[in-house]
Amino acid sequence: MTTATIGGKRIIGVLGGMGPLATVDFMRKVIEATPATKDQEHIPIVVWSVPQIPDRSASIYGKGESPLPMMQDGIRRLEQIGAGCIAIACNTAHYWYEEMRRGSSAKLLHIGETTAEGLVSLGIPRGPVGLIATDATIETKIYQDRLGAHGYDSLVLPKEDTDRLFWPAVRKVKANDTKAAVPLLEEAVERLVAAGATRVVLGCTEVPIGLAEARREIRALCFDATDALALACVAWASAETAGAP
Amino acid sequence: MTTATIGGKRIIGVLGGMGPLATVDFMRKVIEATPATKDQEHIPIVVWSVPQIPDRSASIYGKGESPLPMMQDGIRRLEQIGAGCIAIACNTAHYWYEEMRRGSSAKLLHIGETTAEGLVSLGIPRGPVGLIATDATIETKIYQDRLGAHGYDSLVLPKEDTDRLFWPAVRKVKANDTKAAVPLLEEAVERLVAAGATRVVLGCTEVPIGLAEARREIRALCFDATDALALACVAWASAETAGAP
Repeated sequence: MTTATIGGKRIIGVLGGMGPLATVDFMRKVIEATPATKDQEHIPIVVWSVPQIPDRSASIYGKGESPLPMMQDGIRRLEQIGAGCIAIACNTAHYWYEEMRRGSSAKLLHIGETTAEGLVSLGIPRGPVGLIATDATIETKIYQDRLGAHGYDSLVLPKEDTDRLFWPAVRKVKANDTKAAVPLLEEAVERLVAAGATRVVLGCTEVPIGLAEARREIRALCFDATDALALACVAWASAETAGAP
Repeated sequence: MTTATIGGKRIIGVLGGMGPLATVDFMRKVIEATPATKDQEHIPIVVWSVPQIPDRSASIYGKGESPLPMMQDGIRRLEQIGAGCIAIACNTAHYWYEEMRRGSSAKLLHIGETTAEGLVSLGIPRGPVGLIATDATIETKIYQDRLGAHGYDSLVLPKEDTDRLFWPAVRKVKANDTKAAVPLLEEAVERLVAAGATRVVLGCTEVPIGLAEARREIRALCFDATDALALACVAWASAETAGAP
């Protein structure tokens, strides 16, 4: 199949809106990860930011309708408008990755896979890494299997810390009160490092937003899965521009 | 014509990429302007961010190809994917507004019109308002005619102040040195107020970024045209949700 190009560059699609600020944050990361000295060297991006997609966690726990039909609809529209490679700007949504991939003619990136590849390319030694994510992301092993395939064992917070630190921080970020999230997320990172993690994977799009104003030594311990996904978009666009498959 | 809805909400389209960071800034403003307490209350947005669109100022001055065909292509794709109302996240691109509007079945917002409506709804009295913008935006009267239709006379900087204050400030912002832009832009605002402006319209996407750290009394005199465009998107989406035409 032939994918549309714009000025010789193929188009990245972003399935987003889960939530909307996380999508904006992801777009900024793609822009910042692009080696460009002027507008025209940046990547063409089409974004389908639809916050009406049903709650992913609720559906996994059988408490809400499935988001899959609306996500498949989004992927279809992104392909229709010309996207050749699609990133999903939501960790938990990757629970439906295989169903989305099967129905898609575009390349669909997986945030667990791009994270594992990012840790390897940074030279992070095999062994324990921390993972901060929603219960649903953790329980459905969106990261663990792919990290494990590259030699990384995932350490997660105990349930009581997830409830006390992680969820209140996510709610603060979604309510645009990022400052209130900082101390909660700093403690979450410190607890995983105390448990043996050499690096802490931020596997929920709200977490890097909440940690942006954290102390420098805390931020240095973190690996933002969204950064890795953005870098994978830039790598795909660069390879495509150069004529690679 | 029937426009696609998502969970009862109609879809906003954004023609962007001019430049890419200005598009991200605009999306953030739409999100922040939306009265929402959870994801599902935010507006569905589809963004066509294509930095390959030829330089608008260069084309206006006869030094480059026209951006119009690529902008019309973007509008067509945004409509095809379901957008019922489209905002253009670039001031100078509005030079081609009529051509874009004629070929479009979606409602196409005009940043000069939404700015004038924003000034009216804030209760700014008719009379002189300042306008800080590129030479191309000013010379092609993107703002002046629409402000004038609402009773506002546009005051602009004399050419020597544009060259001494505005352009160096824009270059500082584009080089991520926003601090250096602050005193230049503060002086630009003060000069327009000294000339009689009751409010100063920021009609260039780099200017509000440069003024974000300006003195509070300076910021209180400014009116960010991008904010007004974002508010118009939210108002359209709210009216549509409520069943208005």
